[in-house]
Amino acid sequence: MDVFDAIGKRRSCRSFKDIPFDHELLERILEAALWAPSPKNAQPWEFVVVTNRDIRKKIYCEAEARRKWVLEKSGWRWLENYNVDFLKAVPVIVAVIGDPDRSGADQFLPEGGMGYQHACAAAVQNMLLAACALNIGSLWFSLFDPVVIRDILGLSSSKLPIALVCLGYPKGDPQSPGRKGLERVVRYIR
Amino acid sequence: MDVFDAIGKRRSCRSFKDIPFDHELLERILEAALWAPSPKNAQPWEFVVVTNRDIRKKIYCEAEARRKWVLEKSGWRWLENYNVDFLKAVPVIVAVIGDPDRSGADQFLPEGGMGYQHACAAAVQNMLLAACALNIGSLWFSLFDPVVIRDILGLSSSKLPIALVCLGYPKGDPQSPGRKGLERVVRYIR
Repeated sequence: MDVFDAIGKRRSCRSFKDIPFDHELLERILEAALWAPSPKNAQPWEFVVVTNRDIRKKIYCEAEARRKWVLEKSGWRWLENYNVDFLKAVPVIVAVIGDPDRSGADQFLPEGGMGYQHACAAAVQNMLLAACALNIGSLWFSLFDPVVIRDILGLSSSKLPIALVCLGYPKGDPQSPGRKGLERVVRYIR
Repeated sequence: MDVFDAIGKRRSCRSFKDIPFDHELLERILEAALWAPSPKNAQPWEFVVVTNRDIRKKIYCEAEARRKWVLEKSGWRWLENYNVDFLKAVPVIVAVIGDPDRSGADQFLPEGGMGYQHACAAAVQNMLLAACALNIGSLWFSLFDPVVIRDILGLSSSKLPIALVCLGYPKGDPQSPGRKGLERVVRYIR
């Protein structure tokens, strides 16, 4: 698929068929992640591929707990009806884990380095575009507490879960929520 | 260009021809940025396109100051020879600016939300892939203090510069530093 088509056609998918995922497709998507840029090419990431049903269930429970917690904190009424059941059906959840010790020059700033998180986010975007090109449904899921996900996945306390990438065969055809036009978000200094 | 080719062929370019940049290509690259995903589709970004020579010079001066500062802090000897002169030649620098007030549910976590930065990073990756497909040299530059860049660009103190994306016609053919294989960065929980 053309790269501009993939960028424009990628959608957030929240409905998946509950069938196993082709391993070769998964590896193509993970390989795409690796080619993201990172400060000093430190590749400050690892990818935990969760297909285990018990662990997916735990992730679902965390998302559901977090949904209720955020609803209370935020007052965002749309969360009342935000259904995270798709986390039980999706066959693969890839946790993208960042390593703060492999950030760039920004690690010396008083507020600490964020470059490793940016690199992980670029890796996620590569995965989503690759999935789109392969007709795989994907979702960048972020409704979780990183500390809880770290425990569920048995990660060292020095690592930070950045994103959960859901991958599966899509049910239906997710719509785009649209975007603001360039004139609203671009300023020129000529 | 095929999306997998773009993902694999994108390189960090640090040598540009000092000639003006085609506006239509620039808009195609910016349009690609817009289609990145963001929490709640909040589109927590703006793009400041710098072609003005005086402002580019100020950005160069900040990068050079930051290089010396990081060299001292880090002891990274490679920074002694890291030449940022390309910032004077590159015709376009796009500052990608994040808005912390438009993060996702993570904004309610004690450590604050990072989702808006992740979204901006995904937008940057889209730009780099679009540039690659258009045979434009690009660089995700992060050797700066966001506070200084904010001042140079006249931004509100509530906004955070996430990245400087250099765009121009490349001189030469940047090489890839390679990547670790999947077996070193992927773990399965089956």
